[in-house]
Amino acid sequence: MTAVVHHADISTPLPALSVSGRDQLVRGELAQRKDPTAGVTAGSLLVFDLNNIRWLTGFTGSAGTLVVHPDEMVLITDGRYGEQARHQLSAAGAAARVVVGTSATALREAMERTLGPAGAVAIDPSEVTHSQFETVRSQTTATLVAVSGVVQHLRRRKTPAEIARMKRASACTDAALAEVAPMMSARPTERDVRDELEYRMRRHGADGPSYDTIVATGPNGARPHHRPTSAVIEEGHLVVIDVGALVDGYHSDMTRTYLIGEVTPELRRMHDVVRESQLAGLAAVRAGVTAGDVDKVCRDIIANAGLGAEFIHSTGHGVGLQIHEQPWVRTAMSEALQSGEVVTVEPGVYREGLGGVRIEDLVVVTDTGCDILTESPKDISCLQLAPTN
Amino acid sequence: MTAVVHHADISTPLPALSVSGRDQLVRGELAQRKDPTAGVTAGSLLVFDLNNIRWLTGFTGSAGTLVVHPDEMVLITDGRYGEQARHQLSAAGAAARVVVGTSATALREAMERTLGPAGAVAIDPSEVTHSQFETVRSQTTATLVAVSGVVQHLRRRKTPAEIARMKRASACTDAALAEVAPMMSARPTERDVRDELEYRMRRHGADGPSYDTIVATGPNGARPHHRPTSAVIEEGHLVVIDVGALVDGYHSDMTRTYLIGEVTPELRRMHDVVRESQLAGLAAVRAGVTAGDVDKVCRDIIANAGLGAEFIHSTGHGVGLQIHEQPWVRTAMSEALQSGEVVTVEPGVYREGLGGVRIEDLVVVTDTGCDILTESPKDISCLQLAPTN
Repeated sequence: MTAVVHHADISTPLPALSVSGRDQLVRGELAQRKDPTAGVTAGSLLVFDLNNIRWLTGFTGSAGTLVVHPDEMVLITDGRYGEQARHQLSAAGAAARVVVGTSATALREAMERTLGPAGAVAIDPSEVTHSQFETVRSQTTATLVAVSGVVQHLRRRKTPAEIARMKRASACTDAALAEVAPMMSARPTERDVRDELEYRMRRHGADGPSYDTIVATGPNGARPHHRPTSAVIEEGHLVVIDVGALVDGYHSDMTRTYLIGEVTPELRRMHDVVRESQLAGLAAVRAGVTAGDVDKVCRDIIANAGLGAEFIHSTGHGVGLQIHEQPWVRTAMSEALQSGEVVTVEPGVYREGLGGVRIEDLVVVTDTGCDILTESPKDISCLQLAPTN
Repeated sequence: MTAVVHHADISTPLPALSVSGRDQLVRGELAQRKDPTAGVTAGSLLVFDLNNIRWLTGFTGSAGTLVVHPDEMVLITDGRYGEQARHQLSAAGAAARVVVGTSATALREAMERTLGPAGAVAIDPSEVTHSQFETVRSQTTATLVAVSGVVQHLRRRKTPAEIARMKRASACTDAALAEVAPMMSARPTERDVRDELEYRMRRHGADGPSYDTIVATGPNGARPHHRPTSAVIEEGHLVVIDVGALVDGYHSDMTRTYLIGEVTPELRRMHDVVRESQLAGLAAVRAGVTAGDVDKVCRDIIANAGLGAEFIHSTGHGVGLQIHEQPWVRTAMSEALQSGEVVTVEPGVYREGLGGVRIEDLVVVTDTGCDILTESPKDISCLQLAPTN
């Protein structure tokens, strides 16, 4: 219950989210997909993934199945969520009807309603368990067609209202980090820093952290996914802080690496090389450029500095209703980035026993370049430790 | 970086976790299962669920597949986790070998190694996606047999080391709630209370919250799974707080309902009835009693008070590596509780427009009754609001 001075852009209301028209995008995409074995085109799509359901309808409950029919959408949920679903679908402008019922019976009825026995229904085999798949198959006379990634693909390009949420989430993270970074001079543990960051993001309006915050000091920084421990921040350390916030379902993602006191020239050089790589990556992002090209720009700079073997992960990923989603910014990804896609640019180098450096921004792809959502400073001067007594 | 006075029982080291012998339990259970259609008994079990893998081996990485063979276990993971896996398996006493490789190839090789073409391998259809299942099927000549819940069932009874972690998690929650409850007299919002609780649990040593903390004041309490909002705690409200912590992979779970200032006799009666029901439920728990009987004890008291229609959820659930797991404390569950199982007892009543009451403890089933892990007081006197100025 700390008093918090909110930044102006954190306290203004967010624009309303509309899902209107997304059902039509799904139908258009579905018409282009054909099951390679059965040779049928499905007229309807069954959606089980809750993020996909949220994107199509605005529904945020924890239980539901959506059927995208040629003429309407039907959301099947249980008694806990009937009223909430009707309210949320209406608020989001979803052309969908809510059916409340036990999922097995209601699902069968909703599927059979507009489908003759010869109908074909698409289902994404990576968003249902094998046992869910078998249940659906046993309950319908329709042909089930495996179709992958229809909704995930459409979710790549964000609307201004979605971007506003990710901008807000980034602003909460920036504000928290601005408060917490100076505290590192008091020699806190990794967990201390994590606790303060997550608390302060929320005080600035975030619904919570968007993933497990990483704080990795000294040698711990050599592990990209290190979990915070009671290790203490000490003179000569690099500290990798990877932190993001969640706002109305949308994620942010940012990494900064701090130099504590006097660091060796070797560590400083790692930081310089990663910073140069990251800035070049940002400069390379633009609609029409492939994700593989952005990865190559980052990777070449690190490789030319002789550190290529220490850049052990991909350059970035899409962010939205999930912290990791399409598009993937990886070696040889040949699909062009499109305006409105939101991706991270996060090269890093990791040296066993010594530490790591990663610098990461979250950006919106535009026709002329990119808009950077994360604003925390990157030209890190060394943080000086407070004198011990 | 608040100074925290740790309770003695929070700062002492936790006993080591051992997984030794769990592989043999799985083999014993597997031998008793037979696929009803194929009529074969599988000699090996494929495990995809990461909690099941953790329980069997101590491995906590985010990617892995385990094969429980008749003579050994093989954990297949990728390059990020090879060293961590070897270290964790050895520390936990797992009779398992680590294979690092691309999961598709390595998995096929590990499966084929001890199985002839006629071998049968069990797989739980609810812990793989349909697409994972199809991938495994395409890569092996072995017969895949669907077998459900083998490891989940074995995970029900906890060892003393597991219980020590849940006790520690409960103590972190108790300590945080003791600090935060008095703050409610300052009229905070639901989110304020949530933020303070989650922050303080961590300062007391928790790795994080064990689920999304619920703080529901006044009418919001009528929804059992309400998410904290900017609603302010006011005179005459009931405030439902459902909060738990995570310690070394193990969860705690607790709910208390506070009365703020002068509440109506109607709300006070709801609280009294739920408290009586919850105490009776605790008194009913004992090894040999069915979960359905515990549910009935709680439900009868609420029904006899005329509030039966407002008790809209089950009485409880098991807790462990997952926040919700077997055994389920529901109507008509006829399986007997066993000593060492850890379950919640959490009756509640919910009245639209007015509010709700839920009281929940986490308990270990014993031969003579139960040990209660959650110690926050339940005999809630009304919290008085501070005067406004």
